[in-house]
Amino acid sequence: MVTGAYGSIGRHVASALARHGWSVHGIGHGEWSRDQMSQWGLSAWHQQDVSLDGLRAMEVRPALIVHCAGSGSVGASVAEPYTDFLRTVVPTVAVLEFLRVDCPSAALVYPSSAAVYGIADKFPMSEGSSLRPTSPYGVHKRSAEELIREYARLFGLNASIVRLFSIYGEGFRKQLLWDACRRIIANEYEFFGTGNETRDWLHVSDAADLMIHAADHASPRCPVVNGGGGVAITVRDVVAELFALLSRRNAAEFCGTVRPGDPSDYQADIRQALAWGWQPRISWKEGLALYVSWFQREHGLS
Amino acid sequence: MVTGAYGSIGRHVASALARHGWSVHGIGHGEWSRDQMSQWGLSAWHQQDVSLDGLRAMEVRPALIVHCAGSGSVGASVAEPYTDFLRTVVPTVAVLEFLRVDCPSAALVYPSSAAVYGIADKFPMSEGSSLRPTSPYGVHKRSAEELIREYARLFGLNASIVRLFSIYGEGFRKQLLWDACRRIIANEYEFFGTGNETRDWLHVSDAADLMIHAADHASPRCPVVNGGGGVAITVRDVVAELFALLSRRNAAEFCGTVRPGDPSDYQADIRQALAWGWQPRISWKEGLALYVSWFQREHGLS
Repeated sequence: MVTGAYGSIGRHVASALARHGWSVHGIGHGEWSRDQMSQWGLSAWHQQDVSLDGLRAMEVRPALIVHCAGSGSVGASVAEPYTDFLRTVVPTVAVLEFLRVDCPSAALVYPSSAAVYGIADKFPMSEGSSLRPTSPYGVHKRSAEELIREYARLFGLNASIVRLFSIYGEGFRKQLLWDACRRIIANEYEFFGTGNETRDWLHVSDAADLMIHAADHASPRCPVVNGGGGVAITVRDVVAELFALLSRRNAAEFCGTVRPGDPSDYQADIRQALAWGWQPRISWKEGLALYVSWFQREHGLS
Repeated sequence: MVTGAYGSIGRHVASALARHGWSVHGIGHGEWSRDQMSQWGLSAWHQQDVSLDGLRAMEVRPALIVHCAGSGSVGASVAEPYTDFLRTVVPTVAVLEFLRVDCPSAALVYPSSAAVYGIADKFPMSEGSSLRPTSPYGVHKRSAEELIREYARLFGLNASIVRLFSIYGEGFRKQLLWDACRRIIANEYEFFGTGNETRDWLHVSDAADLMIHAADHASPRCPVVNGGGGVAITVRDVVAELFALLSRRNAAEFCGTVRPGDPSDYQADIRQALAWGWQPRISWKEGLALYVSWFQREHGLS
């Protein structure tokens, strides 16, 4: 079972699970055609909220739940923290109760976020680093993580947590890559920030693969693993690469304005994930090339 | 505004606030007579859940909110953790959103619980001790605390947290004192546990007084203070005192059975609360005498 399976990460998780032989039930909001459902590996689609009553009404007792449903925007969480709480924390506890009562031997994998680290005291960020989130988004992801960890311990549930860094991929119509490509083809060259901020990029197919590894490690100890590429790339370097891939000779200008809630630097220590036998297959430059090819097809530019 | 004002702690907080000159709006479930309302210091009574819509519909914009509403039983939280979450964490975030949007200069005081400490690594427990709750009740109180602390920091809200130890008082029809007195007068002398467990007792009137001190210290730094007597008393000593106060010559027998979710020892380090100028006025022996007098009147025994 994949909650939030219509989302940009959830659909890749569904697809990866199907390739591994799972029969996948998706939950979420959105309309699929029959072809799309099968393309994304979904055996069934339940268009609904992730509530306890809703989960029970499905009459499916999964062996694995990957709980991708939840809020997805730092900025929106600053403007509407209560909505962010209702979207992230409450459904997570509904999933935990469903697990505890209805399918206690199932495994739960939770894609959390590097936003739980906030402003880090050391780089790269390891799973044992202190958690000082700087946005309601990060605060709520941390609350959801802690509730999962405590329920796993108190009730013997099998769980694991993957802290995702900057996930991207073909089809992502939001966040830095999308915004930057749109600006570049519109001849707008001004960007937020200083350009020296760093992000740790991971292609969504690698993230989905890590989630499948995490399912094998789910236990009442609830291991936590970072999901990143392990490399800090400046926003300036990413944007320069996009200019090159889009065959523009111009350069970005950074206005220096920082958006509230966004820490300036991210880099994952991925030794734990590597110890599980996972490794990222797509480097950030290969991934950007794939992304720009898709973007160009989307915009009739190729 | 006092949420959960029908509860055994909430009503004492309302009463103490009224004595300090506040006009008190109570929220909760329960029926008051006009006499009872005035006895407990309530200017208005809103019989309703603590939801965001409900808070806004009251059309009151308080200068102080003491958020006493929430679950109140470790045992029930083990049996029904999701209900405990819905009663403790969700209303707390509704109160935070009400504060953030509708009355951002108000102060919030949250009575949390020593259950957040769980099995302590040192005694007495100080506010900086590690938090390792052993029940969903303690886990959810900790989540509520963290959400309050983070919202206070991120949005500049004024908050403070009081971690209550074993609160008791005349009128409490639950927990150890009530159960023990009922057993003793029924000539049942067997008790749970070993008798060597310790609790730190605080009379409810002292707890309410501490909550008023906490209102003066509410800030975006969200100070946390222990609310206890500072003394660890064994269950054996408390029960022996009840036997004496009820003029029974028998002695308790302890069966050794431990209830799940209950740590065996509690003792508060109360130096922080003392530094605020608060101190407990009723010793545990004086308090037990008051309690037993009330219990005897209730049962026509005096």
